[in-house]
This record gives sequence, C-alpha cells and structure tokens, in this order.
Amino acid sequence: MTPKVLFAATDTAWQEYEGHLGHALAAAGIEAELSPEAGPPETVDYIVYAPSSKLKDFTPFTRLKAVLNLWAGVEHVVGNQTLRVPLARMVDQGLTEGMVEWVTGHVLRHHLNIDHALSHQSGEWVRHVPPLARHRPVTVLGLGALGAASAQALAGLNFPVTGWSRTPRDVAGIDCLSGPAGLEEALARAEILVLLLPLTPGTEDLINAAHIDQLPRGAVILNPGRGRLIDDDALLAALDAGHLGHATLDVFRTEPLPPDHPFWAHPKVTVTPHIASETRPDTASEVIAENIRRGEAGEPFLHLVDRDRGY
Amino acid sequence: MTPKVLFAATDTAWQEYEGHLGHALAAAGIEAELSPEAGPPETVDYIVYAPSSKLKDFTPFTRLKAVLNLWAGVEHVVGNQTLRVPLARMVDQGLTEGMVEWVTGHVLRHHLNIDHALSHQSGEWVRHVPPLARHRPVTVLGLGALGAASAQALAGLNFPVTGWSRTPRDVAGIDCLSGPAGLEEALARAEILVLLLPLTPGTEDLINAAHIDQLPRGAVILNPGRGRLIDDDALLAALDAGHLGHATLDVFRTEPLPPDHPFWAHPKVTVTPHIASETRPDTASEVIAENIRRGEAGEPFLHLVDRDRGY
Ligand SMILES: NC(=O)c1ccc[n+]([C@@H]2O[C@H](COP(=O)([O-])OP(=O)(O)OC[C@H]3O[C@@H](n4cnc5c(N)ncnc54)[C@H](OP(=O)(O)O)[C@@H]3O)[C@@H](O)[C@H]2O)c1
Ligand SMILES: NC(=O)c1ccc[n+]([C@@H]2O[C@H](COP(=O)([O-])OP(=O)(O)OC[C@H]3O[C@@H](n4cnc5c(N)ncnc54)[C@H](OP(=O)(O)O)[C@@H]3O)[C@@H](O)[C@H]2O)c1
Repeated sequence: MTPKVLFAATDTAWQEYEGHLGHALAAAGIEAELSPEAGPPETVDYIVYAPSSKLKDFTPFTRLKAVLNLWAGVEHVVGNQTLRVPLARMVDQGLTEGMVEWVTGHVLRHHLNIDHALSHQSGEWVRHVPPLARHRPVTVLGLGALGAASAQALAGLNFPVTGWSRTPRDVAGIDCLSGPAGLEEALARAEILVLLLPLTPGTEDLINAAHIDQLPRGAVILNPGRGRLIDDDALLAALDAGHLGHATLDVFRTEPLPPDHPFWAHPKVTVTPHIASETRPDTASEVIAENIRRGEAGEPFLHLVDRDRGY
Repeated sequence: MTPKVLFAATDTAWQEYEGHLGHALAAAGIEAELSPEAGPPETVDYIVYAPSSKLKDFTPFTRLKAVLNLWAGVEHVVGNQTLRVPLARMVDQGLTEGMVEWVTGHVLRHHLNIDHALSHQSGEWVRHVPPLARHRPVTVLGLGALGAASAQALAGLNFPVTGWSRTPRDVAGIDCLSGPAGLEEALARAEILVLLLPLTPGTEDLINAAHIDQLPRGAVILNPGRGRLIDDDALLAALDAGHLGHATLDVFRTEPLPPDHPFWAHPKVTVTPHIASETRPDTASEVIAENIRRGEAGEPFLHLVDRDRGY
C-alpha cells in the first residue's frame, strides 16, 4: 500500500520542501502520498514534523509508524506523552556544514580579534600579531553530529581542541572528556568555549556562575546550541566583571530576542538571530526519504531520539 | 673552521632571535659565531638578513656563502646588484600557519557577513542564513608556500577553490590554473579573491581596472600579499561604483598607511596593519640553522630565490 506522509510544519516550509521531498522519495524508490493536509488521521503512516507546527496531539494517528523531525533539536517534542512511536531527529549534511562554518568563522573572529580591527579604522597603525591557533585552546561542549564536526574543523586549523560529552567518545584529533568529572577540566582549558549541547534537564543552565568561574579569565563563549544552556544573569555578571571577554550568541531563552534585552546593547555580546545553521531542504529531504524507505522495508530508523535521555 | 654569521636586522629582531638562533644552530650540530656586529666583513660566512636592515652593499663580504632572508618577500633585496651569492627567502611553518589563519578568518568573515551582524545589534531580529561554503567560489592568486596552504585550508572548509600561478601547479583539492590564459577564468569565478603573489615586475599592478572588471559583481578582495599588486585608484573606483563589495587589505604601497589615506575611512575597506602573518623566531630559526648546516655540508640550500624571475 502507498504510505501516506503528513507534512506538519509551516506553509513556508511546505513550499520549500514539497519539490525536494517528492524527488527524494522517488529517488529512494518510494511511491508515497505526500500532503500538508492530514485527512483522516488514522490513515497517516509518517509525520514529517516541525515542533513549531500546530499539531500537538498525536493520539488520533493510530497507524503512525514514525515522526520525522525537521529540526536537530527535539526539546519541544520529546516530552509529548501522546507521541508513542519512534521519533527521529534531523541529522543533515547541509545543517552540519552550515554549523561548522558559523563556529569556525566566529572562533577565528575572536582568535584574530577581528572586532578590534573593524573598530580601529581611523588611521592609527598599531600592530598586534595574534598568537598562532596552536596556542589557542578551544573547548566544544557536545560531541554529537554538530559538535564533533565543528571540533574537527577547528582541529584541522591547528586549534588544540577539547571536547566534552555525556558518555565517553573517541573523535580523531580531539581530546575527549566526558561526564561531570571531565567538565571542570574542559572548562579550565577553554580560551574559547563552544556550546553544542541539546537542551535537556541535564544541560539546562549548565553555564551558570559556578561553571563560568572555572573558565580562564578573558574566555569567550559561543552559543549556537540553545539559549537555556546559559544562565543569562550569570553570563552578564561575568562579562561586566571582566571575567569573560565576550559572548557570541545565536540562540536565546525567548526568540526573537526582545529588542529591550540587555544582550543587544551590551558591548561584549554579539547577537546573531538564530542563523548559525538551518536544515537545507535538498539534503534534509534525502534523510527523510531514507527513513521512510527504512520504515517500509522494516529496517531500523536512522537518528532515533532516546526519549529517556531527552535527545 | 667555525662559521661566522652576521645578523643584519633591527635590534628588536636581534633580541627576539638571539636565543632561538643559538639553540637552533646547536640543535643542528653547528658551532657558529653569531653576532649582530659585522666585524671585518671579509670574515663573514652567512648573513641573516631583513630587508629593513641598513646593510645594502654586500661587496665587502668577500667570503660570503649565502644571504638568508628573514622575510618571505624579497622584493627589496632581489634586485641588489652587489649580492652575488645564493639568496634564500623565508619559508617558515609559523609564518604559513599565521597566514592560513588570517586568510581563513577573513574569508569566513565575508562569507558569513559577520560585519553585518556586528553592525546590527540594535534589537532588530532579521534572519539571513548565508549560503553554504560549497556554493561560495574562492580564488587564490599565487600557489606558493602561503597560497597553496591557504587554498587547501579553504577547500577543507568546502569552499570551491581555484588557484592561479605562473607555471602549472598541482595542488590536491584545488582547481589549478596558470599563466595569462588562466587568469581571466580564475578572476571570473572569484566571489572572494585572495592575493598571495610576490611583488615582481610580472605581478605589479596586476589588480588593475581591467582585471577588476573580470571579477563578478559584488566580489570581495583580500590582499595579504603586497600593496603594489593593486592599483589603488582602480580599486577605490570599483568599490565606489558598487562593482566590488569590499576590500580587506593588510599591505600597502606606503607602510604605515598614512592616516589621511582614503582606505582608512572607506566604508568598504578594512585595513589591517601588516599583521596577516609574521615570521616566528622559534620555527624560523630552525629553517636558518638548517640552511647554514647545508652550506657547511656542501648540500644545496633550501628556498633559494631565482633572481631572474624575482621571487
Ligand atoms: N543555532 C542553530 O542554528 C542550531 C541548528 C541546529 C542544532 N542546534 C542545536 O545543536 C544541538 C546539538 O545538535 P547535534 O545534532 O550535534 O546533537 P547530538 O548529535 O544529539 O549530540 C548531542 C551531544 O551532546 C552531548 N550531551 C547531551 N547531554 C549531555 C550532558 N548532560 N552532558 C554532557 N554531554 C551531553 C551528547 O553526548 P553523547 O555523545 O554522550 O550522547 C552528544 O555528544 C541541538 O540539540 C540543537 O539544540 C542549533
Ligand atoms: N602580509 C603578510 O604578513 C605577509 C607575510 C608573508 C608573506 N607575504 C607575501 O606573500 C607572498 C607570497 O609568499 P609565498 O611564500 O607563498 O611565495 P612563493 O612560495 O614564492 O609563491 C609565489 C607564488 O606566486 C606565483 N607567481 C609569482 N609570479 C607570478 C606571476 N607573474 N603570475 C602568476 N603567478 C605568479 C608563483 O608561481 P609559481 O608557483 O609558478 O612559481 C607561486 O605560486 C610573499 O612574496 C609576500 O609578498 C605577506
């Protein structure tokens, strides 16, 4: 029987994905009925899902085989008690590449002190040659699809990179630490700290006053992970006290970041409006089609979320 | 006999190099007499040389075996008619790494439009997700020690990289073009153009109005090579006409760049004060010691300059 795939996301997303998903399903040899309209819920086999969708109650979808998330982050859906079928998150080559570029670009920006150069264009010839990357330790918290790829790109540019994850990992070229015991060491080394953790009860407010204190003086924080990884007040206090050098933030507790939020005007904070990376419809559609192919062939799904650990 | 090595550069350079050079010579098994004072010129075997040195007449150094340049660029010494012994330029791992970091950092800065982010911190949440690096063609003019390493670092970040040199080259991962015929194609592809050519009669004013015209509209130029590679007036005209998007310049016809030079205040020009990279005394001393070892052993010198081609 032709599987029925419900696309539950915004209209804009549907416009971006319709063609790519159709092609990718055909290329995977799947004849599917793809639509942004549910029709009778008990006829739907798969839901391609954005957590921003209005669909919150999965109970009526009695035949559902899997929910395929369009986003890498699943914190808005993982706790949904009506969802009892496998949930896959997005791991997309395009998304990963974009994140690696954002992280590498902003690490180099801070490493080379490009902000200083841009704000000193009034005729004073004062030479400060930065140290080499090999003398600039960087720590990446999170060694998943995005963290590991970013860490390896930085190591490829000679930065000594420490990575940190929940369970022990082995990533070529990266000094990997894990668990609560590894965190103190990972923080103590970080002249530049990159947050690529998912938001879970175990990571929320991880970057609080005590952990910020463990960073070396002058450290810079880059957060392309999730806003709630950071205690905003502790961050601002550490910037104001001079303990931290800068924070470049792509994600926030409230998005859009309200115009009157102190991050916007703070001289030591750079806001980017959640643009570090985006799922790319062409490559992401291939990942979704492959998962539907697996579902139809009775093979295990890719990128399954573990509901207990929350990512 | 103990070879005598004259260090002909600034006092500051001597302070930076004395210890490192001493160690490197010892590590190479060379017992040498190293000094910033010439003494009787006919007793000097090697000159470690910075083109900023006061020494311009090599005639009295009748026993000289080689001049070992501290800089990568030799345009100020290559035409010296009193210099008749081998001239080696500086190829230094530390110098190369620094250049790769400057080039990669500024390419990513333009690719990600970081300047825009830095100047839009007043509360407006407007999302522009940049394209992926794989869709941003970069061209590097010059595929020597610095150009090839920079090109490969950019290719490692997925940029499609075209390289251009005088003679045909083969650099892994880079689409290599050469000679006058290859230049037009190399320029036509360049959304970002990086200049890593030496200054010679064949490269002076290469980036003139006609060649700038061959770049795609909105192209960005990075010049960490030499100031005289660019016709400054043509560059300013193309920026003002909107044909070029930006120029980030590290080197200039006159250095320090005079405070009233239009580059400083130009909104589409970023000046960095010749800090893209620097010879690093520790690693550079090893290169110099190795060349002295070779000279004493009668082996060919490394990194010899070809006086006819000028680099
Ligand atoms: N700003 C943006 O545009 C953007 C775009 C996409 C994604 N993101 C964010 O990036 C996050 C990471 O994505 P991903 O695809 O790399 O996720 P992932 O593959 O699931 O990797 C998560 C990593 O975090 C580690 N981790 C989780 N909980 C931890 C804990 N309590 N202590 C220590 N380490 C812990 C995991 O450890 P283990 O290896 O031991 O499992 C894993 O290494 C997403 O969740 C999302 O929030 C942001
Ligand atoms: N801003 C800074 O801080 C800084 C620091 C160090 C160096 N530099 C500059 O960087 C330059 C490059 O250094 P490098 O060590 O990479 O030099 P290199 O190893 O001598 O390489 C020079 C490259 O330029 C090519 N080339 C020379 N003349 C050419 C012409 N007429 N047409 C086309 N290609 C031509 C050469 O072609 P072939 O391969 O065919 O020989 C070679 O690929 C130096 O000369 C110096 O000016 C700047």
